[in-house]
Amino acid sequence: MSSANLSIRLDLPQPYLLFLGDTVDAGYAKTAFGLRDWAPELCIGELACSADAISLGLPKLSPAEARARGARSMIIGVANIGGRILDSWMPSLLDALAAGLDLVAGMHTRLADTPELVEAAKHHQRRLIDVRTPLAGIPTATGRKRSGKRLLAVGTDCALGKKYTALSIARAFKQRGVDADFRATGQTGIMIAGSGMPMDAVISDFEAGAAEVLSPDAAPGHWDVIEGQGSLFHPAYAAVSLGLLHGSQPDVIVVCHEPGRTHVLGLDGYPLPSIEETIDLNLRLGRRTNPNIRCGGVSLNTSKMPEDAARQLFAAESKRLGVPVADPIRGGAEFERLIDHCLSGER
Amino acid sequence: MSSANLSIRLDLPQPYLLFLGDTVDAGYAKTAFGLRDWAPELCIGELACSADAISLGLPKLSPAEARARGARSMIIGVANIGGRILDSWMPSLLDALAAGLDLVAGMHTRLADTPELVEAAKHHQRRLIDVRTPLAGIPTATGRKRSGKRLLAVGTDCALGKKYTALSIARAFKQRGVDADFRATGQTGIMIAGSGMPMDAVISDFEAGAAEVLSPDAAPGHWDVIEGQGSLFHPAYAAVSLGLLHGSQPDVIVVCHEPGRTHVLGLDGYPLPSIEETIDLNLRLGRRTNPNIRCGGVSLNTSKMPEDAARQLFAAESKRLGVPVADPIRGGAEFERLIDHCLSGER
Repeated sequence: MSSANLSIRLDLPQPYLLFLGDTVDAGYAKTAFGLRDWAPELCIGELACSADAISLGLPKLSPAEARARGARSMIIGVANIGGRILDSWMPSLLDALAAGLDLVAGMHTRLADTPELVEAAKHHQRRLIDVRTPLAGIPTATGRKRSGKRLLAVGTDCALGKKYTALSIARAFKQRGVDADFRATGQTGIMIAGSGMPMDAVISDFEAGAAEVLSPDAAPGHWDVIEGQGSLFHPAYAAVSLGLLHGSQPDVIVVCHEPGRTHVLGLDGYPLPSIEETIDLNLRLGRRTNPNIRCGGVSLNTSKMPEDAARQLFAAESKRLGVPVADPIRGGAEFERLIDHCLSGER
Repeated sequence: MSSANLSIRLDLPQPYLLFLGDTVDAGYAKTAFGLRDWAPELCIGELACSADAISLGLPKLSPAEARARGARSMIIGVANIGGRILDSWMPSLLDALAAGLDLVAGMHTRLADTPELVEAAKHHQRRLIDVRTPLAGIPTATGRKRSGKRLLAVGTDCALGKKYTALSIARAFKQRGVDADFRATGQTGIMIAGSGMPMDAVISDFEAGAAEVLSPDAAPGHWDVIEGQGSLFHPAYAAVSLGLLHGSQPDVIVVCHEPGRTHVLGLDGYPLPSIEETIDLNLRLGRRTNPNIRCGGVSLNTSKMPEDAARQLFAAESKRLGVPVADPIRGGAEFERLIDHCLSGER
C-alpha cells in the first residue's frame, strides 16, 4: 500500500474500550456486539453509564483501568434513534479523554461537532474520530486494473448480512493460508477492521475513486474481501453500490440474501429482485472494470430458520442456481464449497 | 413545489454580470459562452481584468454600471486548470462586492474558502455562492412516484452534449406550448437555469434523494427536462449517473453521443459503449423506479461534421436504431421528429 493511500483511509487507535451508554436493548448495540464477536482481541473491556444497561460479558472497566490495560480508544458501540450523543453519556466521554483514550464514533451527530468534547480533546491532546466522515483528498477513479485479487459481497437489499459474509470469507481464506484482508466500507466494519472507507459518506464524484483507494495494488496471490453496501436495486442507495462495484473491480462477487424477505427494507412498494437478477446485473455492470468478474456463490442469512430447513434450502438453491449456497454463520460443508469455488477461478 | 424543496435547492440572484478574468482562450470560458447563448436575458454585460481577454460581445461594464442596470450578481464565467481563483482577479471580485453584487462561482476553490472575499462579503452584506456546494438537508430517496412527466438526457460518455440537449428539448417543448422546466445538475447548467442541484457534489447516500428534490411533484401535463451527468459506463462517474437516473424517475430518456468518439474521455483503456447498449442499460436500470421508461430518441453532437454528412447520419442511424436521431443544435425536421416522439407516449 502506498503512503498516499494510508493518508486518506481511516485508521483507528486500538485496542478499544467499548462504551454501551445506558442502552437496555441489545438491538441498539449491534456495533458493540459485532466488535466483541469479530474482533475480540481488540476489545479490552466495556463501560456503561447506567446500572441496568446491557452487558457484552467483557470485563467492566473504567477508562483509567482500560488505559492501564493498553486500550487506546473508547468506541461508542451503541446507536439510538436519530444517532445522537446523549447528555447522560457526556461524563463518561469526558472521563475517557481525561484518562488518555481517543474517542471513536459512527453516529449521525459528529463528535467533532460537540463543543464540550472538542474542548476536552484539545485540553487532553486526544483525537475525536468520526468514522462516518471520509478523509479529504479522495481522487476520482482511474479505472486502472490493480494487481491482487478482490471479492465483493453484494446483496439483494440492505442490511441482510454483507458485512458478516465478507468477514466470514476473509477468516476462511486466512484459515486456508490464503493472504487476505477484510476491507470495511461501513461504520461497524471500519471499527472491526480498524480502518476502511465510509462509502456512503463519500461525495458521489469520488465514489468509485474511494473504492480504488480502499483496495490498493497488492501481491498477485493476495485477496481483498470487501464489505458491500446497499444494492444496485435500491432506489436510494444504488449509487453507492455501483461506485463500490466499479472501483472494487472484483474478480468474484458473493450475493447475499435473506430468505423470506420480499420487499426492500422500509420501502413496501419495491419488491426484492431475484437472486438470479442480482447475480446477472452485478456481473453485467462489474464487467465494465473487470471483464473476468464471476459469481463465487450465494450467502443466505438463515438466522430465523431452523437448522434442518436451512440445510435443505442450501441444497435446493445450489441446485437451482448452479453455484454453492451457504450461510457463513452456520458454516459447514456448504460454506467450504463456497470458499472452494471463490478461490477456484472456475466460472 | 414544497417550501422544503425550495430551501435545499440552489437559487441564484439574477440577472448577471459575466466575469472573464484574463482568459484569452475561449475554451476556458465555456460557462460564459453557455450563459450568453442560453440565457441572454440574464446577461447584463461582461467584465475582464486584462485588455487582451476574450469578449462575449456583450456590453463591457464595471460592477457599478452593471448594478445600475439591474445586475444582482457577478458570475465567474471562466475556468483554469486546477479551478483556482487567481490573484489577478481579486480586485475585480472585491469591486463587485463593493458595488452591491453577490458573487457566484463553480470553481474547485470555493469563494467561501477565500478569506479576503469572506471578509469583504461580510462587510458589504453580500453573498458568496459556490454552485458546486450542495445545500444541507438533502434527504435519502423514497422511491415514491411523483406526479408530472420527466425526461432525462443520458449519454455514452461525459462532455458530449447532455446539457445542450436538455436545454434544446426544454425550449422546443415550450415552443409547442408544453409546460416545461429545464432542471440543471451541473455548474454551468445551474447558472443558466438560476437554480438546480450539483449532483456530482452530493454525498453518495443522498444522490438519488437529491434528484428527487430537483424535480418535485408537478401538474400532470408538466415536463421536467433534466440535464444528465456522466454515464453508467464511466468507471469513475457511473454512481452519479445511476443516482440521477433512479431519483429522476424519467418517463423518457434521450441518449446523447458524439459520432467518432471511440473511448471514454481521458481513459483510453475504456471503449465507449454502443448507443444500443446505452439505451438498453438505461432502460433496464431506470425501470426500477419508473416501469414505463422509454427512449425518446438519440441526440448526436455533430459540431465537427459538415451539414450534409450530419443529415445523412441522422437518417442512417434513425433507420438502424428505430428511434428519431437528431442534433438539437442543428434543429430541423429530424429534431422535430425527436420532440414528437418524446411527447407521443409511444414506445
